[in-house]
Amino acid sequence: MRHVDPATGTCPAPVPETERVLLGHGSGGRLSAELIGQVLVPALGAAAPGGPLEDAAVVRVGESDLALSTDAYVVDPLFFPGGDIGSMAVHGTVNDLAMRAAMPVALTVAYVVEEGLPLAVLRSVAESAGAAAAAAGVPIVTGDTKVVGRGAADQLFVITAGLGRRLPGAAPSVAAARPGDAVLLSGPIGAHGVTVLSTREGLGFEADLVTDSRPLHRLVAAMVAAGGDAVHALRDPTRGGLASALNEIAAASGVGVEIDERVLPVPEPVRAACEMLGLDPAYVANEGCLVAFVAEDRADEVLAAMRARPEGDQAVRIGTACTDGPVVVRTPVGSRRVLDVLLGEQLPRIC
Amino acid sequence: MRHVDPATGTCPAPVPETERVLLGHGSGGRLSAELIGQVLVPALGAAAPGGPLEDAAVVRVGESDLALSTDAYVVDPLFFPGGDIGSMAVHGTVNDLAMRAAMPVALTVAYVVEEGLPLAVLRSVAESAGAAAAAAGVPIVTGDTKVVGRGAADQLFVITAGLGRRLPGAAPSVAAARPGDAVLLSGPIGAHGVTVLSTREGLGFEADLVTDSRPLHRLVAAMVAAGGDAVHALRDPTRGGLASALNEIAAASGVGVEIDERVLPVPEPVRAACEMLGLDPAYVANEGCLVAFVAEDRADEVLAAMRARPEGDQAVRIGTACTDGPVVVRTPVGSRRVLDVLLGEQLPRIC
Repeated sequence: MRHVDPATGTCPAPVPETERVLLGHGSGGRLSAELIGQVLVPALGAAAPGGPLEDAAVVRVGESDLALSTDAYVVDPLFFPGGDIGSMAVHGTVNDLAMRAAMPVALTVAYVVEEGLPLAVLRSVAESAGAAAAAAGVPIVTGDTKVVGRGAADQLFVITAGLGRRLPGAAPSVAAARPGDAVLLSGPIGAHGVTVLSTREGLGFEADLVTDSRPLHRLVAAMVAAGGDAVHALRDPTRGGLASALNEIAAASGVGVEIDERVLPVPEPVRAACEMLGLDPAYVANEGCLVAFVAEDRADEVLAAMRARPEGDQAVRIGTACTDGPVVVRTPVGSRRVLDVLLGEQLPRIC
Repeated sequence: MRHVDPATGTCPAPVPETERVLLGHGSGGRLSAELIGQVLVPALGAAAPGGPLEDAAVVRVGESDLALSTDAYVVDPLFFPGGDIGSMAVHGTVNDLAMRAAMPVALTVAYVVEEGLPLAVLRSVAESAGAAAAAAGVPIVTGDTKVVGRGAADQLFVITAGLGRRLPGAAPSVAAARPGDAVLLSGPIGAHGVTVLSTREGLGFEADLVTDSRPLHRLVAAMVAAGGDAVHALRDPTRGGLASALNEIAAASGVGVEIDERVLPVPEPVRAACEMLGLDPAYVANEGCLVAFVAEDRADEVLAAMRARPEGDQAVRIGTACTDGPVVVRTPVGSRRVLDVLLGEQLPRIC
């Protein structure tokens, strides 16, 4: 790797494309994992987190198990059917905390604003973030706002951080799935990514589509109340979709996964849009569902608790964890195909 | 205010400049205060924080008083004498926690990266953030990375959030200064802003200048150990400089302030650069000093404790809080001038 001149921040020789950040490095796929695992985390040195990469970190303070999370949102466009960058930022951070069985205690929000953005747009996004936080029952306690010149940012980026407090009785981790676990999915997949893409490109599908963006912490609380420590692993399949979430859990836990494609809930408008666009719904980003690995003997109770909540009323069991091997899908005709991690970007700027 | 079409995020009619975000809205001056106080905080509705705007919010969880803070960094250039966007982001968030007498427990870091940024630059920034966190004794527990296309961001923005735990015995707040308090300053002012400006513009002053960016939590711990609850208010004078920090405390606490210009520590290279550039050092951003309002009868002890630390070895008493009135400076010739809040931007992209 080239040396950066610390006085100027420049590299002394031309930098080839292979040593530059690509759009795919933000995709949630293999390039993202390489950037995080080979560059960003090792660079932190002694300050780096130990253990697997989770949606939120758990920090013990006094007698409390707290969770801490952050997300940067760069979605384009800022507004889309069913949501916007403000509500999505709140839901995303609440959900990252929830994936560690933590209920949100406080959020922060930072804005990076391009000079010239209409104040009405900023106000509308802030109102949406405030309404989403109020609906989730969590205050936004502090924030920061920076403005950069025209052309130095694309309208508005929103960065949230969240503090949560872990529920007693469960400690789900991406690394805690076990062979034999039931794999539960809380609701239909694919709506968010296709909605944003269609709105951005004016494809027309957005008339029938709406993002699934919503908070999942109450769903998780119901699951933990029903299943306790049988709730082994939780992940909200955002960037990279369900396929990436399953692969992350499988890799971190050292298990294989077999999914039944026939029961995968894909709404008809999402299926139609994906077919037209050549997308696999299993790789499309979601913002309002979760995948859970639950001990087999408690799976029915947890599934029933999920279905009793509006966020989980279409919850289904989609498969089972096995001792090892890749994430595979059993197709309707009985064949099996590997659901691998994508290399790079299927849909940029989707969250 | 115009209505935003939520489906498109656009305003139906041309938006005049007076209803757009200006660079000055990110300055830390009066425009910033108006944006926060009249747009962003009211927009949050029921989710908005109560009380004055502090460097960090205090949140009670169980038996612990925690502090939570976030900062977005958009400094240009990314690297400058004595620091870079990575170390600065860590120091800034540690310092925001420290201003509430909270010691850092965990940090998060999010990157918004422009496609094409050399990986060496990102690695160098991450290494610097890691080294700064390790030196401050705080882990970076989680993060997020988003990549946007070329031209959709200017190289790299870094957004940090911090969780802290409050020291027992002190509860400094921007609203807790009292008439009669001694006003203490921990070190020289003006170096950071002038260093960044000179590096960006290639003015040549940077050969003699270095940012003061550094963590201040150990200094605050020493002050609290010496002064306890006599440490009424703390602020690190970043954007908008010492003048803005004094005005913020004065306004939130309902006190006036009188400062003696003769004792204000301004390093000679900073003074020379400011004279050439037409800048007032009292408005130039700092990243490694703090201003404290301390009860008169404990001020000498606190000042001695500050001077015993390397970050505070040039600490001085610069003035006194009075019952009301503006922030005024007594000049060397005995006259008084008001140190008002700037309207907008003195130096953009300085932090």
